[in-house]
Amino acid sequence: MKDLNISHSQELEVRWGDCDAAGIVYYVKYFDWFTDGRVALLKHINIPYQKSFHEQGITVVVIEATCRYRKNLKSEENFILWTKLARFSRTRMIFDYIITKPDNEQVVAEGRTVHTFVDNAGKPFNIGKNYPELWEKLSALYE
Amino acid sequence: MKDLNISHSQELEVRWGDCDAAGIVYYVKYFDWFTDGRVALLKHINIPYQKSFHEQGITVVVIEATCRYRKNLKSEENFILWTKLARFSRTRMIFDYIITKPDNEQVVAEGRTVHTFVDNAGKPFNIGKNYPELWEKLSALYE
Amino acid sequence: MKDLNISHSQELEVRWGDCDAAGIVYYVKYFDWFTDGRVALLKHINIPYQKSFHEQGITVVVIEATCRYRKNLKSEENFILWTKLARFSRTRMIFDYIITKPDNEQVVAEGRTVHTFVDNAGKPFNIGKNYPELWEKLSALYE
Amino acid sequence: MKDLNISHSQELEVRWGDCDAAGIVYYVKYFDWFTDGRVALLKHINIPYQKSFHEQGITVVVIEATCRYRKNLKSEENFILWTKLARFSRTRMIFDYIITKPDNEQVVAEGRTVHTFVDNAGKPFNIGKNYPELWEKLSALYE
Repeated sequence: MKDLNISHSQELEVRWGDCDAAGIVYYVKYFDWFTDGRVALLKHINIPYQKSFHEQGITVVVIEATCRYRKNLKSEENFILWTKLARFSRTRMIFDYIITKPDNEQVVAEGRTVHTFVDNAGKPFNIGKNYPELWEKLSALYE
Repeated sequence: MKDLNISHSQELEVRWGDCDAAGIVYYVKYFDWFTDGRVALLKHINIPYQKSFHEQGITVVVIEATCRYRKNLKSEENFILWTKLARFSRTRMIFDYIITKPDNEQVVAEGRTVHTFVDNAGKPFNIGKNYPELWEKLSALYE
Repeated sequence: MKDLNISHSQELEVRWGDCDAAGIVYYVKYFDWFTDGRVALLKHINIPYQKSFHEQGITVVVIEATCRYRKNLKSEENFILWTKLARFSRTRMIFDYIITKPDNEQVVAEGRTVHTFVDNAGKPFNIGKNYPELWEKLSALYE
Repeated sequence: MKDLNISHSQELEVRWGDCDAAGIVYYVKYFDWFTDGRVALLKHINIPYQKSFHEQGITVVVIEATCRYRKNLKSEENFILWTKLARFSRTRMIFDYIITKPDNEQVVAEGRTVHTFVDNAGKPFNIGKNYPELWEKLSALYE
């Protein structure tokens, strides 16, 4: 698995529904934002998830997810979600995430998700073998 | 931080709203289940979260969360959520989770959450100092 | 559309993740509970949603949803969810819901959802025509 | 209660986590969007919910919520959420919502939420009496 450094950032706002009874963002919601980061990054590099994966019968399942929380966020606060496609191979994708306050300095949270490709029956497969065109498009990112 | 082995298990059913467009449980939802496990375990040991923490002005914030996914689950499938209060100190609580198929053998997912205590202003504090009675109740678990 | 009176009730507990920053159940979550009520009722009458509808390519989409809120609920409170399959035809299903405190007297919320059947392409269809066996099973409920 | 016509619209994108196993937006999520619409509209008229209500000890609870669904939405589709503060009084706020495809013509869903003001103890109150300054700001909208 080669190293890669493709990233995308977006400014988002904490929604009322993101917060729990402690008045701060529920820790679970950060993982939902990570999904938003992945989807935005893939769209940004012209491999939109819905069209290039989901509608082709590919599910990019999560096999590991981690988040470290440094600061809290409250409803209506803005934040920056920075997503990086760290590494990928024919059977893996690794995304890293950093969430900061809008000043871009105070880190709110950092995370990572590791993915593999499975078909509609839930079986893992080699994307280079089963989807050579998509693999070509992905591997061009290294060049 | 001493080692501890207090655990609780419960059988749950995957809800329709837990699943994403891939037809399987959305990876984010496992962290929501981990919360359910913590709440159930704390109730089980007679330190209910809502009364003993939330209503006393204590927020047990998550500072780290991890999950490893081994199998998928679909809507209406049953599963066992096993929660363990692994370790705690005056400033930390660590919970471990295992989710299995109802036969109790096939591991679906494994996770860990690490917590610290903060007050209503979001400041971390030593629970032994600020809430000696609660600390006494908690530390009795080691005996 | 004939009148029908098939109902199912279940006791549930408010989850931490159900609550918003006001410390009470987020109004949105009641609709998620209504889904749980429908799924439980359909399982109760031996027409489980996942197997009898979803896996057959039938989506029972919601075309109207309403909820009236009378009381608040907090985390770890128990409540009763009472679901009724009020009426149905070859193209419609109507479910009514009542949520009460566990004493069964204080009404917390009341709701209704109206559904129609669509195929995988999103097109509505007559369930009596396209799924005669399922329709027979459903219409037997009137007898 | 006088009639009012203050509105706000925003373009949003369906998130992967909004969709259920049928591959379309889960009907529950529309109510979450309605919250986003309210929050955005209140910010737009300089009465941000978090600062002007939540942090002042006012909860604007929902007492009725309705949605009619006309079209489906899939992940990564854009849509317009149009929110209107339809009417309000010292004890009520009514918001109307229309969701359309980005072309602004095809209606995807229409909804309404009715709200009342409650204090931290969950008791309804007259906002004109208890928060005269906020009431002045709100009632100026009619002029």
